[in-house]
Amino acid sequence: MPSIEQARRYYLAADSVHDFAHIQRVLALAERIGREEGADLEIVRAAVLLHDAAGATPGAEAGPRATHHEASADFAGSVLAGEGWPEARIEAVRHCIRAHRFRGSEAPRSLEAQILFDCDKLDVLGAIGVARAMAYAALAGQPLTGEPSEKFKATGEKEPGEPHTPYHEFLFKLGRVKDRMHTPTARAIAVERQRYLEEYFERLGREVAGEL
Amino acid sequence: MPSIEQARRYYLAADSVHDFAHIQRVLALAERIGREEGADLEIVRAAVLLHDAAGATPGAEAGPRATHHEASADFAGSVLAGEGWPEARIEAVRHCIRAHRFRGSEAPRSLEAQILFDCDKLDVLGAIGVARAMAYAALAGQPLTGEPSEKFKATGEKEPGEPHTPYHEFLFKLGRVKDRMHTPTARAIAVERQRYLEEYFERLGREVAGEL
Repeated sequence: MPSIEQARRYYLAADSVHDFAHIQRVLALAERIGREEGADLEIVRAAVLLHDAAGATPGAEAGPRATHHEASADFAGSVLAGEGWPEARIEAVRHCIRAHRFRGSEAPRSLEAQILFDCDKLDVLGAIGVARAMAYAALAGQPLTGEPSEKFKATGEKEPGEPHTPYHEFLFKLGRVKDRMHTPTARAIAVERQRYLEEYFERLGREVAGEL
Repeated sequence: MPSIEQARRYYLAADSVHDFAHIQRVLALAERIGREEGADLEIVRAAVLLHDAAGATPGAEAGPRATHHEASADFAGSVLAGEGWPEARIEAVRHCIRAHRFRGSEAPRSLEAQILFDCDKLDVLGAIGVARAMAYAALAGQPLTGEPSEKFKATGEKEPGEPHTPYHEFLFKLGRVKDRMHTPTARAIAVERQRYLEEYFERLGREVAGEL
């Protein structure tokens, strides 16, 4: 398995939303949940450290048709094969990485894959979810604040010219993450983190209105 | 005074941290505090709408030696002169804008200038302070999370290679804003917003450690 310092170098080209700090947060949570759920921690750690590497590693760019999760699984396979891992354990890591996408076609079947999926998604909720949503908006040139229209709140569709803000993203997507968790530990964390995110956006709206 | 729609066009070239949404947040707060403190609301509104315009308005770029607040004061003067404002009221607005910088050489003397200064700074605290700190970090390519060293906590100086994060910025600068407020209303808001920001970073640290 790559060391922390080796893994750090795979993410030198990443932006603030998908950088090595994200990997470290997912690792801390995955080790905790992996222990509580009785997972194979070596598989979990290798999968976490390598799950976003393609596209962020110089020399490991995803090809034009390859998607990020498949290219990262291939990259992980070559790294672990180079370290002499047995084929079955390499495939276990590759499955975790292929199955970690929110809209992926491969569902996480193993406990280790479920833990990577869950921990990767938990990083969009809570205080860190606030941070990443705001960072993403800034990189995309979107406003940080702005009240969604009544139409958007009811249907998820915007009025003409309505800008996209982190609060729109929360209403549209971040509110559904907790229903996609696989492990009981992750689901409990998701519920608590989502409540924090809701309270954050409620407070933000009151500050924007000049009330707080 | 420019209308909201006219003023919006002055900020089309701004990034997510200093865009028109920032102006609208400062305006909501300045109107509230201006009423509570008995300020001249027309001066306050004009100063808020124009205070960051130079550098963000196509055709109103700051010259190489001009600073942002002086160039915006000049721009405001020409806009209001074009509307036929009396010279004394134009100068009142210009003073507000020149004196709104945290490290500026001109201190805010009038109540209206103190309100612009206070409301502009309140936008770096509270839930919106979190949002802007994260957005700024993303635009600067900095990590969103990372624990400051003991040395930084004690002295404000970093270890070699220590990255700058929003939590560093909070410890170094955002924690001092409340001591710079001029009006009692703004100071009370600053104290409450700073407490929220402290709780946010404390929680963020626990999430990063995988505890929450």
